[in-house]
Amino acid sequence: MKTLVINCGSSSLKYQLIDMETEKSLVQGLVERIGIEGSILTQKVEGKDKYIIKENMPNHKVAIEHVLKALINKDHNIIQSMDEIGAVGHRVVHGGEKYSHSVVIDDEVLESIKECSSLAPLHNPPNIIGIEVCRELMPNTPMVAVFDTAFHQTMPKESYICPLPYELYEKYGIRKYGFHGTSHMYVSQKVAEVMEKDIKDLKIVTCHLGNGCSLAAVKGGKSIDTSMGFTPLAGVMMGTRSGSIDPSVISYLMEVHGYEINDINEILNKKSGVLGISGISSDFRDVLEEAENGNERAKLALNIFHYKVRAQIAAYAGIMGGVDAIVFTAGIGENSSVTRKECLKGLEFLGFEIDDERNSVRGKIQEISTDNSKVKVYEIPTNEELMIARDTVKLISNI
Amino acid sequence: MKTLVINCGSSSLKYQLIDMETEKSLVQGLVERIGIEGSILTQKVEGKDKYIIKENMPNHKVAIEHVLKALINKDHNIIQSMDEIGAVGHRVVHGGEKYSHSVVIDDEVLESIKECSSLAPLHNPPNIIGIEVCRELMPNTPMVAVFDTAFHQTMPKESYICPLPYELYEKYGIRKYGFHGTSHMYVSQKVAEVMEKDIKDLKIVTCHLGNGCSLAAVKGGKSIDTSMGFTPLAGVMMGTRSGSIDPSVISYLMEVHGYEINDINEILNKKSGVLGISGISSDFRDVLEEAENGNERAKLALNIFHYKVRAQIAAYAGIMGGVDAIVFTAGIGENSSVTRKECLKGLEFLGFEIDDERNSVRGKIQEISTDNSKVKVYEIPTNEELMIARDTVKLISNI
Repeated sequence: MKTLVINCGSSSLKYQLIDMETEKSLVQGLVERIGIEGSILTQKVEGKDKYIIKENMPNHKVAIEHVLKALINKDHNIIQSMDEIGAVGHRVVHGGEKYSHSVVIDDEVLESIKECSSLAPLHNPPNIIGIEVCRELMPNTPMVAVFDTAFHQTMPKESYICPLPYELYEKYGIRKYGFHGTSHMYVSQKVAEVMEKDIKDLKIVTCHLGNGCSLAAVKGGKSIDTSMGFTPLAGVMMGTRSGSIDPSVISYLMEVHGYEINDINEILNKKSGVLGISGISSDFRDVLEEAENGNERAKLALNIFHYKVRAQIAAYAGIMGGVDAIVFTAGIGENSSVTRKECLKGLEFLGFEIDDERNSVRGKIQEISTDNSKVKVYEIPTNEELMIARDTVKLISNI
Repeated sequence: MKTLVINCGSSSLKYQLIDMETEKSLVQGLVERIGIEGSILTQKVEGKDKYIIKENMPNHKVAIEHVLKALINKDHNIIQSMDEIGAVGHRVVHGGEKYSHSVVIDDEVLESIKECSSLAPLHNPPNIIGIEVCRELMPNTPMVAVFDTAFHQTMPKESYICPLPYELYEKYGIRKYGFHGTSHMYVSQKVAEVMEKDIKDLKIVTCHLGNGCSLAAVKGGKSIDTSMGFTPLAGVMMGTRSGSIDPSVISYLMEVHGYEINDINEILNKKSGVLGISGISSDFRDVLEEAENGNERAKLALNIFHYKVRAQIAAYAGIMGGVDAIVFTAGIGENSSVTRKECLKGLEFLGFEIDDERNSVRGKIQEISTDNSKVKVYEIPTNEELMIARDTVKLISNI
């Protein structure tokens, strides 16, 4: 079955068509600037020229119409008609406490996803629009929602209850939800497979280091803690996000220096992290280059990032009572050997040694610890789209 | 030399008179309700009845006059006149970046301490009043300021720079300062002494668990990280304080539920932590009792507290590249064997085993790990007053 995977943002849309017999991604596409002047769709197929549509796409409906048109275009020759799309899997950021697994979308499910919007006001609404438009354009195609939060719903209360008045959890749902769940699940399962171990016997720390960064403690195949929290702002420092900070900094800036809460949000989400400290960029490649040229603030930004990831890995080893495997994934985790090396520096006492040659490999499944290491360290490219497609096929075959 | 140690709060004042030849505390006193109806001074001397003054004490000057009167009272017969007080050591909460060590107080120093008040608006002003009144009443007695922040001034930038725009550090001094420094210094030095090791060779995690809770990573005798931050709100959860949380919770409460920033401050500082989760009390003894009676929220509050301390111990072992000793101190850390045991549960892989019989000892220097443990675990009663007196004597002998 060919499964379409849709990841719908506020002004962008990523999609893949995956052949689930072979688990091969047939098409990868991206629509940018939806609702903004200069909309553009770019579709890639292995061995062929890019297919590009530059047309006014005032809303997601028009954008998805163009996606469907691109999928059946003659040059790429992937599918002849929309009927060949057997199912659609939608990435949904927030499933609240209701969804600990993926779910076939019906009216009631859609309503529940809408109810979770207050917890993810930037993310769920575009996800919902994507679902609604697809249902309108493909009324007979079964669809599944796959939640970023679902994998972390196995966390125990010790991890997810915030150290706040308990009523804030009961009344407003303020708790740790965690994100990047599909990625943490994928790489933890993959590392068990590569190690030829039963995941039930493993304690794994997964490090998803990309634009957003989060770590998870995966024990026996279940997420028992993760560094993002109520929102994707918490945890380790990221490209532009602060991660966790002393909450008093917010009241200090507001009460002593006259900041408004929306200034604070802007600072913590867009102007902090690696960008904020380096003053250069949120892109690790730029900052790494500047650091190599001797820029002290660039070096500091990277050092702080490595330091926070290192502390978080150790903390998760601690709460699991030890660690068997550490996995790096996502843009930075898969590609930056320096980042991996620095994030692990000093943690060798946990029971591993890094093999520099192995660690120089980029973007593919690779053990980077030595054969003698008791604790195994891996880089594993994530594949959230494949996980979404897998869940989609699994669920619709049960309908 | 007899040294008076003063710890001046907004409406209270603690003092001790210590004989520095023997390092014995001769007198311990507490004044409560300064400036509030029902002021009371209680002074204790070993083997004697308490000396109590119940008189109107409208301000700190009157309170300190009563302290001096209490010290020379005939019943306690400690000193005959104020002239026997050779020096006064003042606890000062915030020394900013200026003070990495204690300092003899002169007009310029007093001015600098005043400048640090914006960073500790609740704490430094009463400390300053205490200094000013003592200088007025004992104009010829040398005085020293000992800062809670000083011990942590050895932290590297990786620890103390916040993942925020760097300008917030440069313009407003927003960084991690850390607190309880005198206590972390005392117990780390003491554990090295008890272990008969050179502190330069040790990696120590110190856990100060009292009304406020903070941990420190002490490597080679220097604090390289600590869990409190810009203010004493950050870090692990405490009796009423939240510790670190997802900063987005603040904007969510303000923007979606109409909270004001002063409501938030009140919640995070006074209504969170063990009190907030248990709904019972901030006093661990009360919560422990309720937990033993089967109260689920009480159990949860304690479990979360243990969980966060455990994760922090492991994180500090990680950033030091291992750990040689773990020390528990302050009210809870010295007295609650259950807390110590639970905070360490699962961390045995670091290289220790707890001896339950040793761990049942309360309030004195005691190794609680087994003889075979590679990593040593201790409870060590803190003694901030003695540290203050030692620094005071050391500094004034150099005048």
